[in-house]
Amino acid sequence: LARELRRLPGIGPRSAERIALWILSNKDARPAQLSEALTAAATSIHPCSQCGFFATEDLCEICLQPSRSGRELCVVELATDILPLEKTGSFRGLYHALGGRLAPLDHIGPEQLRIDLLQERIHTGHPTEIILALSADVEGEATTNYLVEILEPLGVPLTRIAHGLPAGGGLEHADQITLQRALSGRRPVAER
Amino acid sequence: LARELRRLPGIGPRSAERIALWILSNKDARPAQLSEALTAAATSIHPCSQCGFFATEDLCEICLQPSRSGRELCVVELATDILPLEKTGSFRGLYHALGGRLAPLDHIGPEQLRIDLLQERIHTGHPTEIILALSADVEGEATTNYLVEILEPLGVPLTRIAHGLPAGGGLEHADQITLQRALSGRRPVAER
Repeated sequence: LARELRRLPGIGPRSAERIALWILSNKDARPAQLSEALTAAATSIHPCSQCGFFATEDLCEICLQPSRSGRELCVVELATDILPLEKTGSFRGLYHALGGRLAPLDHIGPEQLRIDLLQERIHTGHPTEIILALSADVEGEATTNYLVEILEPLGVPLTRIAHGLPAGGGLEHADQITLQRALSGRRPVAER
Repeated sequence: LARELRRLPGIGPRSAERIALWILSNKDARPAQLSEALTAAATSIHPCSQCGFFATEDLCEICLQPSRSGRELCVVELATDILPLEKTGSFRGLYHALGGRLAPLDHIGPEQLRIDLLQERIHTGHPTEIILALSADVEGEATTNYLVEILEPLGVPLTRIAHGLPAGGGLEHADQITLQRALSGRRPVAER
């Protein structure tokens, strides 16, 4: 059991041993329920056939909301990126998880990502805007640039999320590239 | 000596003792030179009378460059914020350090900051654009909003640096407010 627990992220050999001993010695541990929950999750949850988010049906709960379609389509790298964006509560459109980003060194090219599905969704779903919300690192930038190239001819307004100073941050803690992007991405204050 | 060294930022009692003993026991320590450098810095360096940056003359090295005037004017909180912006190498205008930000609880109002000097500089220097580059936290925002109110009537294009995803960051590491700002500050990709 400890060996299996050790494979979980953030759990080292000592924690794994402590958890295993707690499960065996504690009356409230209910190992059967945990085991059941694991099996249920593993069998019933799979990627949404449309956006790639976690779903129990064919479509996920986000894709099933009728008010969300025909609006913006937000492209992210991973299904797990959808959760933090949902938590902001400021986006009411649909998502599309690529399932990763371009990484030629790891043999991940466009055909390994859900890009053909994205093109199909744009053709059939008529989003009002495509928002590229990929990571602000080298591979995220490369993937964004690739997407811009293939999506721009489609004629749908194409935007990308802002890069700049993170919330709560002073200038003295920002790195040079962030400051450079914050400067080059400056916006007229009247726009607010 | 150790007691004095302890007052420096990032130096605890143990480090202070180690440095003091090193200075006393090491042949290459040259305490006289260090002492001289300290005195020279303390007596010769003062705030630039124009922008507030560190200067040995009346004006600092940035304000003395003729190619920089008549261009953008970048407003920052502290003189130390100018250094990281200079390091990006992408800004070729002048700076203006306010000497802090509005903090009513600490009795820091507009008259405690170099805001009147800023207005004067705008009137006489005719900058092409005023860029507000303050911190992305509550007090920085409040100061930015105050500056927008008093600077907007002057008719000079007024912008603020971008807030959003910091460089190298993935979506899963960004907090909600940063993501919200990144979403609301999204830009058309064609603009690049």
